[in-house]
Amino acid sequence: MRIDRHEPEAGVLSNVVGAGDLVFTAGSVADDLSLDVKGQTREALAYIDQMLSRCGTSKSKVLFATIWLADIRLRDAMNESWLAWVDKANLPARACIEAKLADPRLTVEIAVTAVK
Amino acid sequence: MRIDRHEPEAGVLSNVVGAGDLVFTAGSVADDLSLDVKGQTREALAYIDQMLSRCGTSKSKVLFATIWLADIRLRDAMNESWLAWVDKANLPARACIEAKLADPRLTVEIAVTAVK
Amino acid sequence: MRIDRHEPEAGVLSNVVGAGDLVFTAGSVADDLSLDVKGQTREALAYIDQMLSRCGTSKSKVLFATIWLADIRLRDAMNESWLAWVDKANLPARACIEAKLADPRLTVEIAVTAVK
Repeated sequence: MRIDRHEPEAGVLSNVVGAGDLVFTAGSVADDLSLDVKGQTREALAYIDQMLSRCGTSKSKVLFATIWLADIRLRDAMNESWLAWVDKANLPARACIEAKLADPRLTVEIAVTAVK
Repeated sequence: MRIDRHEPEAGVLSNVVGAGDLVFTAGSVADDLSLDVKGQTREALAYIDQMLSRCGTSKSKVLFATIWLADIRLRDAMNESWLAWVDKANLPARACIEAKLADPRLTVEIAVTAVK
Repeated sequence: MRIDRHEPEAGVLSNVVGAGDLVFTAGSVADDLSLDVKGQTREALAYIDQMLSRCGTSKSKVLFATIWLADIRLRDAMNESWLAWVDKANLPARACIEAKLADPRLTVEIAVTAVK
């Protein structure tokens, strides 16, 4: 089976990997860590769009998303940016839980599984 | 590839998504938040049964389960309900970690990946 | 679809499950809980190697890894062992978050998804 790996980061991980029909993005975060959770969610999802595109797919084919919030009370604010992004005709399954993230300024990290 | 999405929730997510042979449930929780972790686990797993059924599969074909506990010390109690549910001839791979969940009354949330 | 389940643990889970071309390991941890995070990561990854081998695959075909750290500040130390293990020509996508684990001596738990 052909495996495509794109956007290597620091020799540690690939930011997106496709194998056959399946595509996995890495846990994706905002670039601008000064943004609030709405802004960080918007940037993380925009990066996911780019990564899905690298494997020839898009948000309408996302099957599952894991959303880690640095504070679970940010869920409503995160959801505002999620709702502005998600394809409402093709809603993914999702889990949203609290977890401390790699940088204390990070409020949200998102990884998705999609098909081509 | 055909993608089936069922049980949309608040326009935010689908509670189960199937694509080809793969099925993903959303993070599933109990309805009755007054239950202890054994009862909440039982209800979350019963909901997962329903979701798997919507995609034409069942617990005997679960490949992986992620279990988030609000307090990791609840693992033994959660496992009692897990053991009453799981198909012992077809044990999934599993990860069980602590995470703060969306409602402070929630003690457990479970998402599974299965095949048809 | 044929499903292979190996290394059952306490009648609760399988440590690795393969279905078609996909392989899922359980959340894997070190045997020797007296080790620091570098040693625990090395042992967890060695166990993952064994589990992948049981399903006829290897680390060069890992698509995604979830890494839970008991303390996110251990990420750099964990990464030293990760970098010594990972196939640099075939970097997986990855998410690394903090989560309290089943035993307070555990510092790291890792689950991977691979193809055959």
